[in-house]
Amino acid sequence: MAILENIGSPNDVKKLDAAQLDTLCAELRVAIIEETRRSGGHLASSLGAVELIVALHRVFSTPKDRIVFDVGHQAYAHKLLTGRRERFSTLRRLDGLGGFPDPRESEHDAFRVGHASTAVSAALGMARARTLKGEDSHVIALLGDGALTGGMAYEALTDAGQSRERLLVILNDNEMSISQNAGGVERLLGRLRLRPGYMRAKGRVRSLTSRGKFGRGVYHIVHRTKQFAKSLLIRSNIFEDMGFTYLGPVDGHDVKGLVRLLELAKSYDGPVLIHAVTVKGRGYAPAEKAPQDYHGISPQDAPKTGKSYSKAFGDALCELARADSRICAITAAMQSGTGLERFATEFPNRFFDVGIAEEHAATMAAGLCAAGMKPVFAVYSTFAQRCYDQMLHDVALQGLPVVFAFDRAGLVGEDGATHHGVFDPGFVAQMPGVRMLAPAGLDELKAYLADALDCGSPCVVRYPRGGEGRWQGVSRGACEVVREGSDVAIAAYGHMLTNVLDAADMLEKQGISAEIVKINEMSPLDCEPIFTSARKCGRLVVAEDCVEVGSAGQRIAASAMTAGERFGLRLVNLGERFCEHGKLAELERRYHIDAASIAEVAAWRN
Amino acid sequence: MAILENIGSPNDVKKLDAAQLDTLCAELRVAIIEETRRSGGHLASSLGAVELIVALHRVFSTPKDRIVFDVGHQAYAHKLLTGRRERFSTLRRLDGLGGFPDPRESEHDAFRVGHASTAVSAALGMARARTLKGEDSHVIALLGDGALTGGMAYEALTDAGQSRERLLVILNDNEMSISQNAGGVERLLGRLRLRPGYMRAKGRVRSLTSRGKFGRGVYHIVHRTKQFAKSLLIRSNIFEDMGFTYLGPVDGHDVKGLVRLLELAKSYDGPVLIHAVTVKGRGYAPAEKAPQDYHGISPQDAPKTGKSYSKAFGDALCELARADSRICAITAAMQSGTGLERFATEFPNRFFDVGIAEEHAATMAAGLCAAGMKPVFAVYSTFAQRCYDQMLHDVALQGLPVVFAFDRAGLVGEDGATHHGVFDPGFVAQMPGVRMLAPAGLDELKAYLADALDCGSPCVVRYPRGGEGRWQGVSRGACEVVREGSDVAIAAYGHMLTNVLDAADMLEKQGISAEIVKINEMSPLDCEPIFTSARKCGRLVVAEDCVEVGSAGQRIAASAMTAGERFGLRLVNLGERFCEHGKLAELERRYHIDAASIAEVAAWRN
Repeated sequence: MAILENIGSPNDVKKLDAAQLDTLCAELRVAIIEETRRSGGHLASSLGAVELIVALHRVFSTPKDRIVFDVGHQAYAHKLLTGRRERFSTLRRLDGLGGFPDPRESEHDAFRVGHASTAVSAALGMARARTLKGEDSHVIALLGDGALTGGMAYEALTDAGQSRERLLVILNDNEMSISQNAGGVERLLGRLRLRPGYMRAKGRVRSLTSRGKFGRGVYHIVHRTKQFAKSLLIRSNIFEDMGFTYLGPVDGHDVKGLVRLLELAKSYDGPVLIHAVTVKGRGYAPAEKAPQDYHGISPQDAPKTGKSYSKAFGDALCELARADSRICAITAAMQSGTGLERFATEFPNRFFDVGIAEEHAATMAAGLCAAGMKPVFAVYSTFAQRCYDQMLHDVALQGLPVVFAFDRAGLVGEDGATHHGVFDPGFVAQMPGVRMLAPAGLDELKAYLADALDCGSPCVVRYPRGGEGRWQGVSRGACEVVREGSDVAIAAYGHMLTNVLDAADMLEKQGISAEIVKINEMSPLDCEPIFTSARKCGRLVVAEDCVEVGSAGQRIAASAMTAGERFGLRLVNLGERFCEHGKLAELERRYHIDAASIAEVAAWRN
Repeated sequence: MAILENIGSPNDVKKLDAAQLDTLCAELRVAIIEETRRSGGHLASSLGAVELIVALHRVFSTPKDRIVFDVGHQAYAHKLLTGRRERFSTLRRLDGLGGFPDPRESEHDAFRVGHASTAVSAALGMARARTLKGEDSHVIALLGDGALTGGMAYEALTDAGQSRERLLVILNDNEMSISQNAGGVERLLGRLRLRPGYMRAKGRVRSLTSRGKFGRGVYHIVHRTKQFAKSLLIRSNIFEDMGFTYLGPVDGHDVKGLVRLLELAKSYDGPVLIHAVTVKGRGYAPAEKAPQDYHGISPQDAPKTGKSYSKAFGDALCELARADSRICAITAAMQSGTGLERFATEFPNRFFDVGIAEEHAATMAAGLCAAGMKPVFAVYSTFAQRCYDQMLHDVALQGLPVVFAFDRAGLVGEDGATHHGVFDPGFVAQMPGVRMLAPAGLDELKAYLADALDCGSPCVVRYPRGGEGRWQGVSRGACEVVREGSDVAIAAYGHMLTNVLDAADMLEKQGISAEIVKINEMSPLDCEPIFTSARKCGRLVVAEDCVEVGSAGQRIAASAMTAGERFGLRLVNLGERFCEHGKLAELERRYHIDAASIAEVAAWRN
């Protein structure tokens, strides 16, 4: 680490001899591999972007110039080069560095990100601000990992192309999304990858390349393939049609070549797109071979958990699909994450990976449903936020019985604020006629998934990251008293069952008898059984792992108040805040939704 | 109307002599113009699509074949041809025909629509269902009016192109969105429009055209321009790169030519895109000349209202922008609807119309803001649903002080269920750190807009369609008692001020003294002043024009219940339902949020 340990800021990258850049890249790789193997994180993407990031810091000067990462799970090298090397071992830990760029961490992080396809939009806004303020700086959007499959990126590219703003978009094309790119975008990029010598054939670029010392270099960067003859045809490409000057495809691991190309791009006054082809997981053989397994990795010392909800969901759906040929599965580039790999293999005709395109996924599901199929869209709760309108306008309004499987609901741990699934209870409850079921264990997940597919209404099944907790068995009905008590009633659902059962044990030791009401159906809420327990005990606590607005607790409160109920009520939830990253147990403690916090609240006296 | 009056179903279109089709189109135009001039509606778009719709019903057979309209405000001819001619005079009236396609109205309407860019997604879902079920039918998506500027359409097209499903997408290219297409898409389509003879140059299409009797016809449909030479170059286009067979551009007003081309497309087993060039407002001179003025028109007999909120917003923003060069305005293809025409003229450099792309708009605003500007994104409440995630993830999470001007909040009247802005109070309240202000009059709108721009937080200013009601002046603070009373407290905000003031008058006649608490800031809520009035009166009514989940009333109830407040509470809101179309006053009465309903609720005794 002879070079890396002397990099205190991006300025130090500029001071290196060109010959040292390759060594720096190698050292960055070692640091990234060591740390992510130890503490988990986004390994493969970050390895693929090392040379791009070194070249960017060689040519541009953050924070004056702004680099906006898309998704941001390729940003580890950037963190290591921008004064965060010594804290890098705190990555994704409580109060440590976050897994994504965050302006609060460093002035070199221009924008906070976590969801895909946002970078060009944010960068274009910054470029426009730069121009309006008469400043002279550069804005770079670094896209990777399937960001182009999201329609938002296309909206931004069309706007940026015609804006004539000086803006550099770098497409880090590793030929796959988190699992595999959806077909359409892959087709588009695939054609571009086959265009060797393309830049030479374009007069405009030719004149650019001859402008300075960088000209000659460009010829050597451009990929050469057997299809050279094709380069003689001046074919249009989508980026040029949009108004970008297109440079590429280039080798995204040739750091010196990238530096030369970035210098060239820097001299151009308008929107430029560099198409860099990289290898996800580059430099770490296991990750190069199976990058999908190394997209996000767990710490080496991670405790082995049992079967995950995701896996149980996938297995259950396969079983149901064997018996009903109308069942289809849809994922937005999360085939593996949502446990659908087996389904994809067993029912390839009924499996649809649409890319990072939740909007389309939801409405496509509505179309399948309108024509008689039974689609299940498996999506992380946080990404379902992307299809709020489509769920409301295309599914709920027509009462189409689409099933949404919201994986990673509640706090997700190390991925932090951009990934916690803590808004869905409220936003789903807003949608007229949409049911929401909350299994608290794997058997229940399977049973509720079957119910959802049979109920004839739009239905969300919500379950957390990881495996099951204390609750086992299958509870039926909207609510069920699963533990009788007399001093305080506690209502909860899903993952929080474990916490409230633990809280009840703690309370018992204090001589307080807690009755647990398990909520099975979060929306619509049947408040009467909850009120019955609350009246009996005189006090009710509703404990949830979501923000307060729209929560079951808030809805129960409104029902109770307008019905003139007089029992005491306390709500345990995440309130009105964003929650940061850390281990799940740490976060639950910090945000007061762990068993001890619930027990403390439940011990209140009216 | 000799021909039209004999069309009872699409089958009758097939029985006509080919020579009668032009007359049918002319009669449809007359019927559409007469009815929309009488009762208002989407005139220009519907006129532009007449020939396309006649040709579709000539060639395809709904309901077996499915036609999915995008947005659907071009569907009037379709309604007239599918058994709804006699009810056409009830268009957009209470309990009458809706302004958009709706499967509950007719089996010929395949999908309910109102928001843009959804058609290809829904149609692809239907096509996949068709194939999985082994059926033999056709699915057609009719896109128009800027749908391509929405990223969701691009997500769907890329998925559809690679799916190899038999699916026909018709792009009704009238060279403008609701006002003007955003630049990027316009560039893409513009290039395609300049490609005469293109189809001839393609071997694949040539073999298609020689397949049957339709072949010769195709040559005559294709536009010819001076740039014929270009046709010799086999240039790629984005739709072909995606996997579509591209046919066009063709004259979208040549009904016989369209019939021939549709027959050709029908014979092809895979995704086909027909690019038809039409004139928005075709056949009605005033609408052809200024189609943006005839996109949606008001009934001739509509009462003249005073200055609208939209206009007042635009004027206020111009005034603020003169004093502060950091203020920018953003619209998603609603320059005129949101009152930004003057701003666009006066500050062209600070005005950004991004197309129907709310996702991009919100994040682009975040980028502008992160780099020091003060962006205001003016958007209809219902369309803001499209950027729920971007508001949360890109704006709120970073606390960027972007201002959102939510126009058309609350019930909007004749546009109906797809357009009512009744979800925003809840979904905005979910977002940590986002303020929400609710002016109840035009002076207040101006004042609150200035506050929003100064407050340093993300902030939504929410105001209704139309002009102001009873409330005038500018109230300050989070809440204010604007009418003192002793028997019942009524809290309300925005447009509902008029209804609650009227209700107070009614109550007074019954001898009930109502105190009105005007809520100025809906989020975060300062409940204490509301509780003060409620305690004094012993009873509180919260009256709102939104769904219940996440409403101010529900939040007040939860605060009150957990604080042990003992006053009586009733909530007046839209509950959990979608609301249909009709005049605003009719809808308020039907859904029990009018003054009489509020007075009735407020007269309850504990």
